[in-house]
Amino acid sequence: VGRFSLYLRRLEGLVREGMSRVSSRLLGQSLGVSDAQVRKDLAYLNLGHPGIGYNAPELIAAIRRALGIDREWAAVLVGVGNLGRALLRYHGFVERGFRLVALFDCDPKKAGVVVEGLMVHLPEQLAAIIAETGAELGVLTVPAESAQAVADQLIDAGVKGLLNFAPCVLQTPPGVSVVNVDLTVQLEQLAFLVQLSSAE
Amino acid sequence: VGRFSLYLRRLEGLVREGMSRVSSRLLGQSLGVSDAQVRKDLAYLNLGHPGIGYNAPELIAAIRRALGIDREWAAVLVGVGNLGRALLRYHGFVERGFRLVALFDCDPKKAGVVVEGLMVHLPEQLAAIIAETGAELGVLTVPAESAQAVADQLIDAGVKGLLNFAPCVLQTPPGVSVVNVDLTVQLEQLAFLVQLSSAE
Repeated sequence: VGRFSLYLRRLEGLVREGMSRVSSRLLGQSLGVSDAQVRKDLAYLNLGHPGIGYNAPELIAAIRRALGIDREWAAVLVGVGNLGRALLRYHGFVERGFRLVALFDCDPKKAGVVVEGLMVHLPEQLAAIIAETGAELGVLTVPAESAQAVADQLIDAGVKGLLNFAPCVLQTPPGVSVVNVDLTVQLEQLAFLVQLSSAE
Repeated sequence: VGRFSLYLRRLEGLVREGMSRVSSRLLGQSLGVSDAQVRKDLAYLNLGHPGIGYNAPELIAAIRRALGIDREWAAVLVGVGNLGRALLRYHGFVERGFRLVALFDCDPKKAGVVVEGLMVHLPEQLAAIIAETGAELGVLTVPAESAQAVADQLIDAGVKGLLNFAPCVLQTPPGVSVVNVDLTVQLEQLAFLVQLSSAE
């Protein structure tokens, strides 16, 4: 799944540069993925095996369909701290079809404040606002101590997927998906690569 | 590499709960990784194949060594916006041995300001401060437009690894590692999982 997102970004870049057909080699090259792996991944999309390269716009549409982003997803964000604000200003989400429809924070001083065009609500209003907006995804930018309680509230209100930035493992019932974003994992990966490359 | 980070977090949690020996099954369970995969991954550490479970503290030490985090890494952060400030407040980095030693921002109004105990410097001072602190890693929380120029400056100053939050692909010379953090990838992964689980 992660590779499909990367292919999508690369393809969009190539189309912007005016390309309409791309080979598996070109697609994989700048991403550090082998031709064979690219072909194997793209075979999953059932586009047939092209001898003269893939049609780039067709491939983009097929990947968006496979990823479930050929539609719009409504999401709520809980925890309007620095990280929450940074995510709100991050235009990548809207460009990819993820629309934030409401904000929540347990700090009464933040309630009623408008941040990036959205009003901050107290958690008490969570169920009503999720029912009203039909939000299916929740973004958790709360401290680890409150993450599970917030997740439970979101799930009770009908949210089906959680993007969790809190450094903790959430317990969720079947049918609810969680993706954890732990930024230290990425920093560790970097340290590993630097160590590897200095040992060469 | 990502799995080693996850094993490490799980092991630390188990040790905190008072456990000293862990099986591959227990370790993989809450992470959704199979026993066989756990054993295969851990075999890379050359600890032998234990019949009665792994010694948890030994395993933690071996993983930290393999990941290159049995030492401290000094890093600088460039771009003191919301995301930069969120990362500065994120205690996970320090706990894992990543110490931010200096901040940079091209906004003259931010220069000289102290954020989370560190002073913000102008990019002009980058080379001198990196030489002085011996920082090996750089965290980029700048807009996409300026990311490549900042990366070039950091690399010229001797930085060996970049954690890039800007939504763009950085060109770097051999010997310099880059890990890109693209938060839309994670949100797309979540949409995919929710779609999959609602189709079941």
